[in-house]
Amino acid sequence: MAEFDSFSAETEDEPLDPRRVAAIRAAVEAGDAARLTGLVEPLHAADIADLLEQMAPADRRDFLRLYSGEMDGDILSEIDDSIREEVIGALPHDVLAEAVRDLETDDVVDILEDLEAPEQAIILSALTAADRAAVEQAMAYPEYSAGRLMQREVVVAPAHWTVGETIDHLRGAEWLPDQFYHVILVDPRMRPQGYVTLGRLLSSRREIALRDIVEDSFRTIEATEEEAEVAYIFNQYHLISCPVVDEGGRLVGVITIDDAMNVLDEEHEEDMLRLAGVGDESSLSDGVLATVRRRIPWLFINLVAANLAALVIAQFEGTISGLVVLAALMPIVASMGGNAGTQSLTVAVRALATRDLTGSNAWRVIRREAGVGLVNGCAFALVMGGVGWGIYGSGLLGGVLGAALVFNLFTAALAGTVVPLLLDRLGFDPALSSGTFVTTITDVVGFFAFLGLASMILI
Amino acid sequence: MAEFDSFSAETEDEPLDPRRVAAIRAAVEAGDAARLTGLVEPLHAADIADLLEQMAPADRRDFLRLYSGEMDGDILSEIDDSIREEVIGALPHDVLAEAVRDLETDDVVDILEDLEAPEQAIILSALTAADRAAVEQAMAYPEYSAGRLMQREVVVAPAHWTVGETIDHLRGAEWLPDQFYHVILVDPRMRPQGYVTLGRLLSSRREIALRDIVEDSFRTIEATEEEAEVAYIFNQYHLISCPVVDEGGRLVGVITIDDAMNVLDEEHEEDMLRLAGVGDESSLSDGVLATVRRRIPWLFINLVAANLAALVIAQFEGTISGLVVLAALMPIVASMGGNAGTQSLTVAVRALATRDLTGSNAWRVIRREAGVGLVNGCAFALVMGGVGWGIYGSGLLGGVLGAALVFNLFTAALAGTVVPLLLDRLGFDPALSSGTFVTTITDVVGFFAFLGLASMILI
Repeated sequence: MAEFDSFSAETEDEPLDPRRVAAIRAAVEAGDAARLTGLVEPLHAADIADLLEQMAPADRRDFLRLYSGEMDGDILSEIDDSIREEVIGALPHDVLAEAVRDLETDDVVDILEDLEAPEQAIILSALTAADRAAVEQAMAYPEYSAGRLMQREVVVAPAHWTVGETIDHLRGAEWLPDQFYHVILVDPRMRPQGYVTLGRLLSSRREIALRDIVEDSFRTIEATEEEAEVAYIFNQYHLISCPVVDEGGRLVGVITIDDAMNVLDEEHEEDMLRLAGVGDESSLSDGVLATVRRRIPWLFINLVAANLAALVIAQFEGTISGLVVLAALMPIVASMGGNAGTQSLTVAVRALATRDLTGSNAWRVIRREAGVGLVNGCAFALVMGGVGWGIYGSGLLGGVLGAALVFNLFTAALAGTVVPLLLDRLGFDPALSSGTFVTTITDVVGFFAFLGLASMILI
Repeated sequence: MAEFDSFSAETEDEPLDPRRVAAIRAAVEAGDAARLTGLVEPLHAADIADLLEQMAPADRRDFLRLYSGEMDGDILSEIDDSIREEVIGALPHDVLAEAVRDLETDDVVDILEDLEAPEQAIILSALTAADRAAVEQAMAYPEYSAGRLMQREVVVAPAHWTVGETIDHLRGAEWLPDQFYHVILVDPRMRPQGYVTLGRLLSSRREIALRDIVEDSFRTIEATEEEAEVAYIFNQYHLISCPVVDEGGRLVGVITIDDAMNVLDEEHEEDMLRLAGVGDESSLSDGVLATVRRRIPWLFINLVAANLAALVIAQFEGTISGLVVLAALMPIVASMGGNAGTQSLTVAVRALATRDLTGSNAWRVIRREAGVGLVNGCAFALVMGGVGWGIYGSGLLGGVLGAALVFNLFTAALAGTVVPLLLDRLGFDPALSSGTFVTTITDVVGFFAFLGLASMILI
């Protein structure tokens, strides 16, 4: 009873609790636009976007037809790439134009990136000339670069100003960005010299010079820098915003932490999906065929690897027909190796991503993993040796099983660490390709060690 | 040549480039404290912490003996939990006391959480009475709660104040937090009523009332809320800071985005490691035995599962001895099922974590996955049916292999989605336990389907 109460109390706090979702669905089915607006209105744009993503495509179409007048830019910004084109295609041009006009340029760029040319043209034509130029300049930077991520709206002050001059200037400004956390000090050629936090500015006396209250943590990012690097820098140095400069060191924009947090989140998702062989940009909104297309290449590679393992086993058909119990036990060796390899591999991929694993400690980590592989191998060799002896009535069989386990768990630990390190050194993403390499190695080595030892000792 | 140049240019930007690390190591070996300080001094605290984490334990001891006088609180804060106790144990008490005195209370709490009682006592005794009381109050909140995460230093103003009154108050304040992004409006009972961004405060005229420039995005978090929920709220609603309240709705602290970003990062790591069966709080600094202890339970569970699969195979020993090629082909069916299951599982676990997968779209996602499993199954059935026919010379064998693949890939897709959904519904972490369940299911079903069909049709 207590548990039920706390559950219902919790769902009341959830913006997308099942009752509201059901009521929204009912309003859409009834074609009741006023009721729909009343139900959706109190929700944050991010929650409305989630609502749209969770709908079946047909329901989403009906929803948009009824709600389109109320769609604003924030919702478009929040919507997942996978359905954004569909949503934008469903909106009347004037609604779309109205929606994007309110957005800051970095958000417009983020929307534009994933659209086809005709939709891009519609959105660009809705912008003011100045905004359009800013967006087109941002789009000229490479994809996944700091230049695409930054907002071009910056708040700057000459390095020689005082606190009072700066505050007066801000009060007189016709327009300021929604989000800004520093005033960036620039020289006459617009090169950033430092920055002052707004907290410092507010709490300092008017006559204090800006250059006397700049932050130690000041650093800049080049516009061509990769966004993954940007996310790393924000996370590592706890930045809240960071000026972006061009090749000449001139200020071209600023990246704020919410953008960096987004990138960090996407990078994590990418690592996780790549490790599982799912492929990038997977989304629950994708249909069956889009999902199949993304997953089938990885399954195909696994098929090739599995056939390689089958080829190894086929060499020992004589051994197996001499002692059929080998066929039952051999997957144990392969499966334990695969699991141990995945453990080492995941730790290595994660440590490479966070830069905890570098050239200076790689050898130490490899040695540690080799030690872990040996210890685990011996532990499970004892267990399975005992099982082989006790259940299958053969001490020799138990010994072969145990020896194969030691050998394969040692191989797994080494491969799980060395393979991602090598791929990373060669410039590949270690998350993308390590898994198949490692399990192929542990399968082939596991079957070969077990059946090979068996053919020498048991047959 | 061009590539070599760009490589060396890049490493010069890296704070921990190999040459600096080598020079630091040399200075430690030579016992040259002045040179060591000169080399470490320009580094950010986060980089010094990384340097310590990447060292072998013996090197770290030598480093700390030489550098201990310069250790400050920021470095302690940045150091990974796994070696923090070791580092703190290596510092003289007066250095440690000096180091923690500069930190804000949330950072002290973060350090304290992972220490044993004697080290906790040393640190607590170094604090001023007011700070100690604040830290002890924070430690009274449950672990992994918002109360532990928040800083207690808040910047507030009565809701009836004007911009000018607020700025004068801030200028007169003896002390302000390092990081603050909003002034929180409170009623006379310290209940938050809204907040004003510092940007708004700076750009508004002095006579404007604070309550006229509050943000729409205002929300509060309860101190007992779980930190995972805090991270979700910051990410979902793009918050930069958020007031924390007690049960009575009174302001007790504030959480800033850098803390939330940290939690998000840890949650991701946890999901990734749990999916791979590594266990929590894994670190590259752990020794062999600590690592073995963390990984062996998962390998043991896998061993039980693998023995279950072996038991299934053992039922078909007669079938296998009649047609030994079955032993070579059966791992293909199991391996393809395991891979497809891991794909579905990872997508489901990630979608549950981001709350894209909810009660309202679960059925649709399950139906989609079932469709994907069927399509993939049929595709690979065709390929392997052909291989079975072509290479092993038996159309019937190809047919059995294909049918088993369809059946197992369909099962894998379903299990990969339903198992994490069920675990989540039952209150378990889907990342923690799904993997073993799903691969056990695909192994058992794969072997059973393939060998069962073979025994009926081929023998």
